[in-house]
Amino acid sequence: MKSVSAKQLAELVGGKLLGDETIMVSGVSSLKDATPDQVSFVGNKKYQSQLETTKAQVVLVCEELENEPLNGRTFIVCECVDLAFSKVIMVFAPPAPAYPAGVHPSAVVSGSAVIGGNVHIGPCAVISDQVVIGDNTVIGAGCYIGHESKIGANCFISPNVTVMYRCYIGNRVILHPGVVVGGDGFGFVPGPRGIIKIPQTGIVQIDDDVEIGANTTLDRARFGKTWIKAGVKIDNQVMIAHNVVVGECSLLVAQSGIAGSAELGRGVILAAKAGVNGHITLGDGVQIAGTSGVVKSLPAGSIALGTPAESQREFMTRWTLPKKVEKLSKKIEQLENKLKELKG
Amino acid sequence: MKSVSAKQLAELVGGKLLGDETIMVSGVSSLKDATPDQVSFVGNKKYQSQLETTKAQVVLVCEELENEPLNGRTFIVCECVDLAFSKVIMVFAPPAPAYPAGVHPSAVVSGSAVIGGNVHIGPCAVISDQVVIGDNTVIGAGCYIGHESKIGANCFISPNVTVMYRCYIGNRVILHPGVVVGGDGFGFVPGPRGIIKIPQTGIVQIDDDVEIGANTTLDRARFGKTWIKAGVKIDNQVMIAHNVVVGECSLLVAQSGIAGSAELGRGVILAAKAGVNGHITLGDGVQIAGTSGVVKSLPAGSIALGTPAESQREFMTRWTLPKKVEKLSKKIEQLENKLKELKG
Amino acid sequence: MKSVSAKQLAELVGGKLLGDETIMVSGVSSLKDATPDQVSFVGNKKYQSQLETTKAQVVLVCEELENEPLNGRTFIVCECVDLAFSKVIMVFAPPAPAYPAGVHPSAVVSGSAVIGGNVHIGPCAVISDQVVIGDNTVIGAGCYIGHESKIGANCFISPNVTVMYRCYIGNRVILHPGVVVGGDGFGFVPGPRGIIKIPQTGIVQIDDDVEIGANTTLDRARFGKTWIKAGVKIDNQVMIAHNVVVGECSLLVAQSGIAGSAELGRGVILAAKAGVNGHITLGDGVQIAGTSGVVKSLPAGSIALGTPAESQREFMTRWTLPKKVEKLSKKIEQLENKLKELKG
Repeated sequence: MKSVSAKQLAELVGGKLLGDETIMVSGVSSLKDATPDQVSFVGNKKYQSQLETTKAQVVLVCEELENEPLNGRTFIVCECVDLAFSKVIMVFAPPAPAYPAGVHPSAVVSGSAVIGGNVHIGPCAVISDQVVIGDNTVIGAGCYIGHESKIGANCFISPNVTVMYRCYIGNRVILHPGVVVGGDGFGFVPGPRGIIKIPQTGIVQIDDDVEIGANTTLDRARFGKTWIKAGVKIDNQVMIAHNVVVGECSLLVAQSGIAGSAELGRGVILAAKAGVNGHITLGDGVQIAGTSGVVKSLPAGSIALGTPAESQREFMTRWTLPKKVEKLSKKIEQLENKLKELKG
Repeated sequence: MKSVSAKQLAELVGGKLLGDETIMVSGVSSLKDATPDQVSFVGNKKYQSQLETTKAQVVLVCEELENEPLNGRTFIVCECVDLAFSKVIMVFAPPAPAYPAGVHPSAVVSGSAVIGGNVHIGPCAVISDQVVIGDNTVIGAGCYIGHESKIGANCFISPNVTVMYRCYIGNRVILHPGVVVGGDGFGFVPGPRGIIKIPQTGIVQIDDDVEIGANTTLDRARFGKTWIKAGVKIDNQVMIAHNVVVGECSLLVAQSGIAGSAELGRGVILAAKAGVNGHITLGDGVQIAGTSGVVKSLPAGSIALGTPAESQREFMTRWTLPKKVEKLSKKIEQLENKLKELKG
Repeated sequence: MKSVSAKQLAELVGGKLLGDETIMVSGVSSLKDATPDQVSFVGNKKYQSQLETTKAQVVLVCEELENEPLNGRTFIVCECVDLAFSKVIMVFAPPAPAYPAGVHPSAVVSGSAVIGGNVHIGPCAVISDQVVIGDNTVIGAGCYIGHESKIGANCFISPNVTVMYRCYIGNRVILHPGVVVGGDGFGFVPGPRGIIKIPQTGIVQIDDDVEIGANTTLDRARFGKTWIKAGVKIDNQVMIAHNVVVGECSLLVAQSGIAGSAELGRGVILAAKAGVNGHITLGDGVQIAGTSGVVKSLPAGSIALGTPAESQREFMTRWTLPKKVEKLSKKIEQLENKLKELKG
């Protein structure tokens, strides 16, 4: 088991050490579960109470907590505890599995595909005609990459991912298992004898540094493209409909969904299970609370919640209505009594 | 690059041409993104304002907009713009990939399976014992088709679809990637030593002309069948529980879900993220708004929204309550003042 | 076709027979769809009305209905109708498909994997280095089991399941198709040049007797483990984020989701589409209604609904507000009239 001193950790994360720099730790844990030989962290003042009871003897703390009593512990004060603790985690983490370069003999790679250098193609993966794959990319076992699709360099495409035909994926993109890129958009019109399918002839484009969670689906555009811009991070089981545009560095949390042709600006956050109607626009930095349903366009910087989503002020007015009505009810009772008195 | 005249397009879609019939276009786009050599469309009067600013010189318009000023543009007036524009899209769309007939050598096909004529079975697909597959059907790479299941003619089963044992799929059915047909229904009863599983011994039946979106799941019946009737269109990430019946030509939008033994009539629409409780019935043509949770049966033609779902009138009464309470509050204040005056 | 007498069925389920014990049945159905030669069931008094119109001649009934008129039918009175009817279903159900022991030649099994006795490994399944698989376990076609993961004995891992590296799965665990175990948790911090990924170095641990529905995803912990305890049953399309703990015998219904580091006690029930915020605790036996969003910790035994979730009493106060406001509005009108009279 690896053992590291508090001093070494403070140097690793560039933090300020308070307390005993010689104390040794051999693992990481949460404040609640830590044993005395583990290092833990607290990045937010609201978890401060756990700091009093934790068994951890070395704790990374945020600058807000710098002046709290040590109680015999060693603090390492960090500007960004999350990033600092990530470095500490990596000290103790077992190595991630390696995916060595090469095409597994059970993989099926078209002769017309162009495969970059140092690429791993896992067992039973299928690479269709005229696919292009960039250097150092991993294509996991059981993946299907459809005709004429392109995947950039340094990507990690997990096992059992499906990329349908003619989709374009940038560099350093991570797709988790079960992701589907380029299924048909949901487009139909009523006809005289049942429902008629509207052809979905566009593509999906995913720019550099995007990460997409397990079993998320991104639909092919009706025409043109469904477009996930650079640096977007998408969680599991998110639904991106046809012709949606998601701006740079937006965060879409689990089970959220965006209907057709909606456009999100840069740095938008959809919390878990939020939904966005089709054909609307959310400006840069818009934040939508979990489970909310957004039915109209919102200007940059808006925060909205509820269904239909409204501002925090409007939502709070609505939420506190029972109390307000109770108060009015009492006032009415008083009025009735006073009126009786007057009459009497 | 293909180039087509406005006259040719008008003939293709059977529309009425207003303006310059000789103008040439070489692609499609939305009003917003169009360049002068692209044809665009507007199917709804509410997008009329974009018609004034678009760079598109040829636009398919709905009949409502027939008398709008051309402003130098060419209009093609169409009865159904969506269908007409689909035809135009196909003129310029690159061809869809071909899936040539034949069984890929890496596919695993049981000797007892019966495979129709002109069938494509992709790499690493698995066809189990006694499966029957109809003519002209495509089974994508990595699909698993379980024992004794039947798939009709002219189906498109995308890569990485799972059809468990003894499920019946009709003709011209499209399943997008990641669809799961015939996982066990969720049935349990509490027992003296933990939870006891109720066997799920029924099947899933999917009738002709059904389309099902990526990563949607349809559970096997407890007994009898889970039944998707002809012409139903299901979007991505929809959940169909055991013994559910969905009537002909219903539309189930993304991330909606139907609990066990619920029955939907013909032409029902569930908007995105809507949920339907178990053991209830929605009559023909019922429409449920996005994110709504339906907890009781609804007669044919009902429109419901909210959770628990209620009528539009009830929902609007509830939604406008803050304003109403504000008004009452002011009236009470006035009454209090008048009463003071009287007393005084 | 198999034919069985009412007497035989009563003996099979240990129920009390009322009526004609010689009547023969040859299948099962619901009350509504039953033909005269089928046995049906009613486990809840609220479905009693269907008992009057059903064509079934033999019906398993709960003890509450023991004294209802037979109307020529045969009743088999059961303590737990659900369990009893499951036994009856199995009498008539066609046999489930067999998955014979052995490794399919198209499967790819690492030389360093340790495979137990009587294990089935299906076509195109991939078993990575140092995986351990217990006796009698089925690994379906197309599954991917990542490096160093362990799967216990008597498990059924359906086709097209993905288990990423270093995840631990107990005995008698059932995973339905499309399940993803061990994708990265969704952890990011904003950095000076875009969003920085927080490494997810922990594992997923799934204890004995857990069942997980189709396309459900369980994310790998940031460090430590995401933990599903023994006997938990999870439905389809459920999202379990990193470091979540789900207590023994909890039930998570379809499309529900639990955000990072939330902890659920023993026997918790999340109804369909319910969501639980990160970093909160739900005590033993907590029940959350469908579509609800829980934003704060709840003590054992709580029942909560709505978003943000509140108690039944609070929710009903809120829900009945329109009626209450209507009443107040009338009272105010009366007051106004009385005041006018007084003044007049």
